[in-house]
Amino acid sequence: MTFKMETSSITSHKIIRVSGHDAEELDDQLAVEEPLEIQIAFQSGGRKERKSISVTMRTPGNDHELAAGFLFTEGIIHSRSQIAGIANTPLDENRVIVTFSDSFEPKLGSLERNFYTTSSCGVCGKASIDAIKTRSVYANAQENWFLEKGLLYPLTDQITRHQNTFETTGGLHASALFDISGQFLMLREDVGRHNALDKLIGAALLADQLPLGKHILLLSGRASFELIQKAAMAGIQIVAAIGAPSSLAVQLAEESGITLIGFLKKDKFNIYTGHHRIL
Amino acid sequence: MTFKMETSSITSHKIIRVSGHDAEELDDQLAVEEPLEIQIAFQSGGRKERKSISVTMRTPGNDHELAAGFLFTEGIIHSRSQIAGIANTPLDENRVIVTFSDSFEPKLGSLERNFYTTSSCGVCGKASIDAIKTRSVYANAQENWFLEKGLLYPLTDQITRHQNTFETTGGLHASALFDISGQFLMLREDVGRHNALDKLIGAALLADQLPLGKHILLLSGRASFELIQKAAMAGIQIVAAIGAPSSLAVQLAEESGITLIGFLKKDKFNIYTGHHRIL
Repeated sequence: MTFKMETSSITSHKIIRVSGHDAEELDDQLAVEEPLEIQIAFQSGGRKERKSISVTMRTPGNDHELAAGFLFTEGIIHSRSQIAGIANTPLDENRVIVTFSDSFEPKLGSLERNFYTTSSCGVCGKASIDAIKTRSVYANAQENWFLEKGLLYPLTDQITRHQNTFETTGGLHASALFDISGQFLMLREDVGRHNALDKLIGAALLADQLPLGKHILLLSGRASFELIQKAAMAGIQIVAAIGAPSSLAVQLAEESGITLIGFLKKDKFNIYTGHHRIL
Repeated sequence: MTFKMETSSITSHKIIRVSGHDAEELDDQLAVEEPLEIQIAFQSGGRKERKSISVTMRTPGNDHELAAGFLFTEGIIHSRSQIAGIANTPLDENRVIVTFSDSFEPKLGSLERNFYTTSSCGVCGKASIDAIKTRSVYANAQENWFLEKGLLYPLTDQITRHQNTFETTGGLHASALFDISGQFLMLREDVGRHNALDKLIGAALLADQLPLGKHILLLSGRASFELIQKAAMAGIQIVAAIGAPSSLAVQLAEESGITLIGFLKKDKFNIYTGHHRIL
């Protein structure tokens, strides 16, 4: 089983930089955005099936992690053992095939994602949250542990230090993982913030490190419902965002027992939910 | 036909603000994020059909514009006259039904969005761009006109002045429209940047103002492929982003004849494509 595939995540483009009354031509670095198609291959009633699951606009690099993470956070697979292999199709680096173990047949009904509706409230955030809670295998894996608040302040510096592509392009979102002593573990980048997080969770899944209960997830931008949903699926219990959280992100964090930090800076932050974990 | 429906785009939440060694409890303002389901109703072979098209996480407000804009930028409708009416379902403010004119039957094959593939290159950005070009009704509506570069500098101040919700929540993306004298025309906000732009384009569609050739579109954040795709569908010829563009955004802008500005600040900016329009 190979998980490696690196293509360039940066490309060069000639631009004109205008400043005041001046203009000069120079080479600029762009974050690469290309479509990635994720296909799954599995056994169904003795027959081999192959199905296209998703096309996402992503930055090339860590594509196998992205595919594995996406399938996990969407609730299509539940453990690493359900994956027999991940490969690119010949001649196409933008198409990844995830082959499932023979014994595992996915429930593709769970692909009808984002359609969270109940008879009592219609289409609403509450129904969305309930749908997430029934899908997460780690929903009840709550542990009691605590963080000293001073430990969070240095994290923004660390994300900047490890986020190489952002520095050259200014164009990528990042998700970073720390242990509860504040030690940096890994970072993934992408033009799509959901992809950066899927890459990170996929890396943990493939290394058999899920759930990520005793870890801190740091998001380089805002915290939306979708990102908290993915964090909840991976059993993450502390999420810190450099930007603002949305209302539904806060509600889902609350119901999932996640400590949600927003506007994290070098010397301050806001606690939106789960403040009992911060000393 | 009614286009109005405003629910709250801001909600209050009790937080703990930690600063240095201090902590205080206070009320914070959050940007609201809730699902919106878009349904279409149309005649097919004499029968009335109703179909759910999309569920998007959005900030409530301008939902009818969002639905109209989404259907237009996805290539499902091509003109305002194809819409007979837009309404909410009773008791559910998160579900909008767009009823098509009797004479218009949509091609729902075009719903297989984001799946851009060719036999020559497989899944790739080039195929994605070709797919967009064949769908845009305004693809060839190029006009020759020019902007004085000094006109762009004041635009960032204007977006800040008009972006009310961002100031209170820090959590919303914005799309703003200016005429070519730099006069502010309108602004739409959302937790999702694609929704902010769909609301703006939907507002223009419903007011019969498309194509938006002689206008400037200002994006509060980064410029991705998806945003340039929507701009191209609306015939927009100048897009200025406060953040960075991606590689595929630049390629699509180039092939669509769009002038793409990035990193717009009070006194400088980068021109990525179409510099002939900037004097």
